[in-house]
Amino acid sequence: VSDPLLARLRDVVGAAQVLTDPDVLATYGTDWTRRFHGAPRFVVRPGGTAELAAVLAECHAAGVPVVPQGGNTSLVGGATPAAGEAVLSLARLDDLGEIDVVAGDVLAGAGVTLARLQETARAHGLRFGVDLASRDSATLGGMAATNAGGIHVLRHGMMRAQVAGIEAVLADGSVLSRLSLAGKDNTGYDLASLLVGSEGTLAVISRLRLRLVPDPPHRAVALAGFATLADLLATVAHVRDALPSLEAAALVREHTGVGAPLQGDWPLYVLFEAAGREPQELLLAEAVLDAPVPPGDAVVAADGPTQARLWAYRERHTESVNAAGVPHKFDVAVPLGALAEFVAKVEPGIRAHAPAARVITFGHVAEGNLHVNVLGVPDEAEHAVAESVLGLVAGLGGSISAEHGIGLAKRDWLHLTRPPADIAAMRALKAALDGRGILNPNVLFPAPG
Amino acid sequence: VSDPLLARLRDVVGAAQVLTDPDVLATYGTDWTRRFHGAPRFVVRPGGTAELAAVLAECHAAGVPVVPQGGNTSLVGGATPAAGEAVLSLARLDDLGEIDVVAGDVLAGAGVTLARLQETARAHGLRFGVDLASRDSATLGGMAATNAGGIHVLRHGMMRAQVAGIEAVLADGSVLSRLSLAGKDNTGYDLASLLVGSEGTLAVISRLRLRLVPDPPHRAVALAGFATLADLLATVAHVRDALPSLEAAALVREHTGVGAPLQGDWPLYVLFEAAGREPQELLLAEAVLDAPVPPGDAVVAADGPTQARLWAYRERHTESVNAAGVPHKFDVAVPLGALAEFVAKVEPGIRAHAPAARVITFGHVAEGNLHVNVLGVPDEAEHAVAESVLGLVAGLGGSISAEHGIGLAKRDWLHLTRPPADIAAMRALKAALDGRGILNPNVLFPAPG
Repeated sequence: VSDPLLARLRDVVGAAQVLTDPDVLATYGTDWTRRFHGAPRFVVRPGGTAELAAVLAECHAAGVPVVPQGGNTSLVGGATPAAGEAVLSLARLDDLGEIDVVAGDVLAGAGVTLARLQETARAHGLRFGVDLASRDSATLGGMAATNAGGIHVLRHGMMRAQVAGIEAVLADGSVLSRLSLAGKDNTGYDLASLLVGSEGTLAVISRLRLRLVPDPPHRAVALAGFATLADLLATVAHVRDALPSLEAAALVREHTGVGAPLQGDWPLYVLFEAAGREPQELLLAEAVLDAPVPPGDAVVAADGPTQARLWAYRERHTESVNAAGVPHKFDVAVPLGALAEFVAKVEPGIRAHAPAARVITFGHVAEGNLHVNVLGVPDEAEHAVAESVLGLVAGLGGSISAEHGIGLAKRDWLHLTRPPADIAAMRALKAALDGRGILNPNVLFPAPG
Repeated sequence: VSDPLLARLRDVVGAAQVLTDPDVLATYGTDWTRRFHGAPRFVVRPGGTAELAAVLAECHAAGVPVVPQGGNTSLVGGATPAAGEAVLSLARLDDLGEIDVVAGDVLAGAGVTLARLQETARAHGLRFGVDLASRDSATLGGMAATNAGGIHVLRHGMMRAQVAGIEAVLADGSVLSRLSLAGKDNTGYDLASLLVGSEGTLAVISRLRLRLVPDPPHRAVALAGFATLADLLATVAHVRDALPSLEAAALVREHTGVGAPLQGDWPLYVLFEAAGREPQELLLAEAVLDAPVPPGDAVVAADGPTQARLWAYRERHTESVNAAGVPHKFDVAVPLGALAEFVAKVEPGIRAHAPAARVITFGHVAEGNLHVNVLGVPDEAEHAVAESVLGLVAGLGGSISAEHGIGLAKRDWLHLTRPPADIAAMRALKAALDGRGILNPNVLFPAPG
């Protein structure tokens, strides 16, 4: 290709890091669910912040839009080109600094995977407060860009709460750098909080200083089956109150391919994990079994392999769903008081437009966060199904995106939960930092016209 | 006054809420420390969000700049006019909603004082995670605008971490409204986090949904005296590690007017508070007294009145300092490893420019956050003293404003910890949301020219 931009990019990152082979482009252009795909104009893979800045300056000068991409596990089309943008792969920004045990933090490149950070932290008796099933592919930069949540939100908060410093490159190649926020800092706007969750539309995150927390020496995991949602919610509320160390509570509505973990067959399951400085097994067992409305059946695991088996039952949902078809994923949250109404109405609402659809729901019940996965949606019903699920959520005062962000998948419904003045303010901020509109221009905001 | 803007404002808020009497203006124009004062063009006191929006629309159309003001306890000149701006008093936005005990939050107007929120929450077995000595005057809107910290940061974080929803009015009078963030929400930019800490330069915060936390039934307070800073830091590290429920650790360097709390006379004091579900007295006593390097002397209080006496020793510092003169207040943070160097160098650095100055230092030692109060700074030495303290902080990798914000006091030193690209990005955001520059135009950014 004799494109002069490509020649300049090859000068910046080396010829091997500017990819134009159509087969290679296709893998970068297709997200993990296969639902979102596009043909990247090219893929460029800078090897550090300086190269990233130079790449952006070149693309900015040429007016070529880019989609930043980490592990390509967005699930909402947040990292795949919708209209022939270039893909800016951050996989090579993978420097992981020494763990600072005293300060409890670490400096990590955007391309470092979550699994690598967790392994490194664990070797120092620490852990990173955000964890999720796609840890082997998800990168810290992508997780920050989307404010990822995962399985420890109840205890440690989402990604934004873990960021102690940020380095990011603006559309024109200038570098914002605040890699140490000294814990307590009120010197001007909190750009880190603004960039976290901005889905690559305001700047490209290149490095992060991330907080680490002590790895609790003891943990216990319980899986409980319930006959009704009311019973389930009563037990979750009891356990949550009884165990301040509780970390995760996952609602599992349909079993997808993992061997049955309990004797009976229950319509609803919850997975609990408690972790702390003292042994947790008895505490968790007591809290779950002595709940005013105890579960129909429950098992508590204190040993690692059994715990892993119980967690697999939760964590393998996403891949099981993906293996069964191309899922439409709705990552929503509703107030706990509205959860029963949501669960009762969501499937009938979907089936009104896609009668053959298969609905698999799981999530994080403590936060009212459900992952509604829909298989078998005909193309022509796609819009009506989304309208049905997201409209129901908005009507119940919930969030149309609890964890994954808006991406391409939900941009046409942003207005459901953000009033016009909010969207106008967001557009003004986007224009202020990316006046030429080259950073991920097709996600988050409603499609024009 | 026949100013047509005043006539329109009187139509909006009523004649009694547009103040032009010079004596009255003077009280709104002078901050609590008396260091910052100016003559407001007028004071306007809207009675709700709709009036606030109408007031801003009028001021915007007239091009008249405004300084939002809550309790007027900024300490850095963040809420007093520097150049004849109007004062926009938010004191009448004082609606406090019902406490939602199940969700653990409450809707509060910007003008509600911290003390009122704490009292109301306590009546429901809850408390608000941010507390500070000026609770009777400080308002929630001002605390959010400055991202206030205070005495529970170690446990609950600063103001930004407590905000579960925000309503704010932009310069042109349009209203941003996200009063419920459903706990887990990733639908677009986090405007709440951006507005918190923006010192009234991007929007005027009108209402907040604030998180509340359980009020721990048991607490214990300890005051310990130390001969050296090294001993003090060793004990603090030990206690912090031994007591996960630890809430505050305040470093007290000079005793100002409260009766001596310990038998000996120590150069350094630390106040500890532990709170939890079980009695804390023995735990705290053990942690403090069994530290590898125990304090020179210590007292532990389990009963409320004695605890209040120990706390008064910390909380009355600010008023004692204020009674002794007009203080120059430097609210800084340094990494704990650099605290000894900072403490050793800060006074000699000040005295090089103001030989007769009196330096009183206290703060929050767990966060390396020191309030350096300097009395007796001659006008001509003001700049050199600030340069000396803030330059030392920046050289040690610290923050020139840990809690109070930049305001007028530190705007000329913002560049010490924020690189040019950061400041340019902040200016771009300011221009995007307040193109006419009417919102608190003289704080935060360096003075022109």
